[in-house]
Amino acid sequence: MTISNIGLFGKIQDDSVAYAVIKVKEFLESNDLSVYLGNTTSSDIDGYRLDDQDIPPDRLLDLAVVVGGDGTMLSVARELSRYDIPAIGINLGRLGFLTDIPMADLESSLSKVLNGKYRIEERTMLKCTVEENKVDICSGIALNDIVLSKSNTGRLIEFEIRVNDNYVSRPRSDGIIISTPTGSTAYALSAGGPIISPGLPIISISPICPHTLSNRPIILSETDQIRVSAIESRESRANLVMDGVLTHQVKGEEILHICKSDRKLKLVKIEGFNYFETLYKKLGWQG
Amino acid sequence: MTISNIGLFGKIQDDSVAYAVIKVKEFLESNDLSVYLGNTTSSDIDGYRLDDQDIPPDRLLDLAVVVGGDGTMLSVARELSRYDIPAIGINLGRLGFLTDIPMADLESSLSKVLNGKYRIEERTMLKCTVEENKVDICSGIALNDIVLSKSNTGRLIEFEIRVNDNYVSRPRSDGIIISTPTGSTAYALSAGGPIISPGLPIISISPICPHTLSNRPIILSETDQIRVSAIESRESRANLVMDGVLTHQVKGEEILHICKSDRKLKLVKIEGFNYFETLYKKLGWQG
Amino acid sequence: MTISNIGLFGKIQDDSVAYAVIKVKEFLESNDLSVYLGNTTSSDIDGYRLDDQDIPPDRLLDLAVVVGGDGTMLSVARELSRYDIPAIGINLGRLGFLTDIPMADLESSLSKVLNGKYRIEERTMLKCTVEENKVDICSGIALNDIVLSKSNTGRLIEFEIRVNDNYVSRPRSDGIIISTPTGSTAYALSAGGPIISPGLPIISISPICPHTLSNRPIILSETDQIRVSAIESRESRANLVMDGVLTHQVKGEEILHICKSDRKLKLVKIEGFNYFETLYKKLGWQG
Amino acid sequence: MTISNIGLFGKIQDDSVAYAVIKVKEFLESNDLSVYLGNTTSSDIDGYRLDDQDIPPDRLLDLAVVVGGDGTMLSVARELSRYDIPAIGINLGRLGFLTDIPMADLESSLSKVLNGKYRIEERTMLKCTVEENKVDICSGIALNDIVLSKSNTGRLIEFEIRVNDNYVSRPRSDGIIISTPTGSTAYALSAGGPIISPGLPIISISPICPHTLSNRPIILSETDQIRVSAIESRESRANLVMDGVLTHQVKGEEILHICKSDRKLKLVKIEGFNYFETLYKKLGWQG
Repeated sequence: MTISNIGLFGKIQDDSVAYAVIKVKEFLESNDLSVYLGNTTSSDIDGYRLDDQDIPPDRLLDLAVVVGGDGTMLSVARELSRYDIPAIGINLGRLGFLTDIPMADLESSLSKVLNGKYRIEERTMLKCTVEENKVDICSGIALNDIVLSKSNTGRLIEFEIRVNDNYVSRPRSDGIIISTPTGSTAYALSAGGPIISPGLPIISISPICPHTLSNRPIILSETDQIRVSAIESRESRANLVMDGVLTHQVKGEEILHICKSDRKLKLVKIEGFNYFETLYKKLGWQG
Repeated sequence: MTISNIGLFGKIQDDSVAYAVIKVKEFLESNDLSVYLGNTTSSDIDGYRLDDQDIPPDRLLDLAVVVGGDGTMLSVARELSRYDIPAIGINLGRLGFLTDIPMADLESSLSKVLNGKYRIEERTMLKCTVEENKVDICSGIALNDIVLSKSNTGRLIEFEIRVNDNYVSRPRSDGIIISTPTGSTAYALSAGGPIISPGLPIISISPICPHTLSNRPIILSETDQIRVSAIESRESRANLVMDGVLTHQVKGEEILHICKSDRKLKLVKIEGFNYFETLYKKLGWQG
Repeated sequence: MTISNIGLFGKIQDDSVAYAVIKVKEFLESNDLSVYLGNTTSSDIDGYRLDDQDIPPDRLLDLAVVVGGDGTMLSVARELSRYDIPAIGINLGRLGFLTDIPMADLESSLSKVLNGKYRIEERTMLKCTVEENKVDICSGIALNDIVLSKSNTGRLIEFEIRVNDNYVSRPRSDGIIISTPTGSTAYALSAGGPIISPGLPIISISPICPHTLSNRPIILSETDQIRVSAIESRESRANLVMDGVLTHQVKGEEILHICKSDRKLKLVKIEGFNYFETLYKKLGWQG
Repeated sequence: MTISNIGLFGKIQDDSVAYAVIKVKEFLESNDLSVYLGNTTSSDIDGYRLDDQDIPPDRLLDLAVVVGGDGTMLSVARELSRYDIPAIGINLGRLGFLTDIPMADLESSLSKVLNGKYRIEERTMLKCTVEENKVDICSGIALNDIVLSKSNTGRLIEFEIRVNDNYVSRPRSDGIIISTPTGSTAYALSAGGPIISPGLPIISISPICPHTLSNRPIILSETDQIRVSAIESRESRANLVMDGVLTHQVKGEEILHICKSDRKLKLVKIEGFNYFETLYKKLGWQG
């Protein structure tokens, strides 16, 4: 791809991010690139939304440079995937799975990208649609995970899980995490799920603190259709959380349909990038 | 002990419980015992509270017979422990850890109790006090567990844990379960904690879905003082849940002090009772 | 496929198996099928080996009926896969993942197969080659898993894991389980691995009791090449175990190469078979 | 206590240990203490045994200084506990739970000990006796753990567990770890057991890769009597491993009796020592 227009994203209300964003901007402009900066949307706790900003419309951006942590990348992933804009992530000290370039390597790494020394990884995203009385009442997409969890209560929730219309189980638990390979190293890992190599065509379902100890994580095909229904949550509704953002409070008669999204996030990985290196650094595998 | 006055507890708004309670009452009265029945308190979702009922005051009850599941026993345990009244639990089909006598064995089991063929197990309870600006603002006790957990949000909470003033850790997680041996087979087990033999003088701390995978359950002495402070819960307060009941919503500047309560629940176990038998039946250990 | 010649396999040294095998044989012969019975090989603890038996050569069998438990299927899978012979498994009381037809359903289930009411599931198998000084010294295939584990010693073993030549980790542990989706519900599950839907093109690596707690199961593509080398096992050699059979004792300078085998096991599943039903029955998911 | 005679232990066949031992010796002698050095016993892979060495007999040593890792401390613990000699552990780079003084703090830490600025922690040890036909055929003690595990085979072992003669379970697994609080951060932790505060009067039983997923670690009283019998290990005997040393190969008709030993290891902890600090450093708890 030819790179001329670059979108630059970060939570610049945070001074250290703002400072880094300026440095990235200077570097990019010194390479004769047009840089478009995102604005904060006050209503958006996670940071920037592409569609709210003074950046060029659909497809004008050739590359998004995201400065911050994995959370920042998650918050722009939905919009970037809509316009098929590749993204690269720069972290400010703590290595991220999505923001894997340290600020110190900014110039060498971005130079590699500008010189074509990179590959694109396409990351699967999930779509969740909420149905009530046969009508879809809302939907959303997620790069990491879609979580159904108990609300402000000390009690378990129950729901029925079906895959391709086949009954799977009706666990009593704190909830369930439906995760992409990208999300396997996030919440799903804390709940006992495996690490999943990023490109695999699979989805994982991990129960959160299940009452029945044999309710273990299940790996499904990304073409499988997951259905969560008959949700029983005493005292209050269950929470539907997408990529860490509370999206909807679910009533018992509502049905969740989760499947692969048509969209993917294109992640730019510079030459020589090794996923396992990120893994053992992040997880402290010292043998 | 001489048994003449018996309190009978159950969620009699449920027909099957009401029916069982009547049968128990008949059996006890046919043995020339005085039976006092609890009333439902509408404001109490868990069922009965001893202090709201038309039963005799302090220490007049010689024994409490609790009909239902472990949840029913939990809901009366606080009051029974206040007056030091021993309790025996009768289940209606599903074996409980606290309600371990099946309805079918009602007569033979209660006869054993009336004939002195039983022993008393004293079960440790926990006390939690919430402090704000050096003032205790509320407190409560629990037979199973005291839980601090994230609220209606997809985000981790953080807090500092100290034991006897020694810094232990500052995990990022969904929360923490502080459990008695009695509670070890409840929520703590789902979160990865061990099974703890009921009489041991210990307390367990189990993180809920910790971000750092080495944050594993810790077993402490029941004489240890646990302090949870500097709670950081973005967007909303954290939940303090005691024996499954949401008790308080915790602000970041509040401090939780958890330690052994002065009260204990006295559980009546009939001769020949074997804790491990309950365990392998409940957990499906078929070798 | 047209089914005329059927091979019948079971550990007939066990009387209850022999009795069942005779019943299956009678049913098949009453349907005008030619049935070839396997013989016991005394040196073979697992039961039958196709190549030792008085059955027709290569490709003459249209179907293998395996009577017994999953272990019996494992022991014939290697040979059946060599000749591409589809297999169906009949259990004698305890439902198996591979032997999923109860003896009581024998006639109805086999009738469905004979009437074409079935589908074939192709199950991935793994190949392991042991290299020493650049020479392959032995190799074998497995349907469930390839395990490298410590030998008769109380000490950890260490080895280096690489995937497609990329360094992954050098864990200290009791060993490692490299598993197919079929094997995910066997040893890998006991070691903390996830349940994997059978047809997925993936391989899992699960450490056994790793010293570093963040050494969690990893899901890879079935096209990945796994290499285990620099094995350090104090006092004695490490064990290479394939589908539960100790195959080789590994020296430190030997290298294991594990990848997908060219062979697959064809499993016959009768119409209406639902994998999740087997799962929740076997794992006791009662919600 | 008055400290005049000090035993110095380390695996001095390792040069870096020998160098450290010499430095410790010089420091102690410059403080007018008598230092007795252990010898290597070639038949002993773990290092030194007190009874083989040119040190004074029973009770002449006032303190043992152990240089190396936790493994070195384990190997001398049995003998030190026999003579009730307190021990202090110095590590050579990697912090240990038992060898918690870094070489760099040698002088300041030992000076504190010589000036009485320490406390003694008494650590429970376990005793295992092997019975055959009502005769005790061997026994041993362990500071960390007693392990029964499968031998050179890919197969599960089975055995019956009883506590105080009550039947507990008959798990199918790779084996079982019976651990002291001291051993809770060693093998038992890798197998899913909890971290146990060192002084508690408890014993943990942790299954190794159990087939039944609800077979979870159990915490018992240190006064409980554990009995493991009816061991079924196809193809070969099971291994009895004590503190990491293969001690006996167990036949099916043999019975293991495990209980608290009369001996304890006295560990010297200098003023200001905080167990939790060791924990969070060793386990990498950075919140």
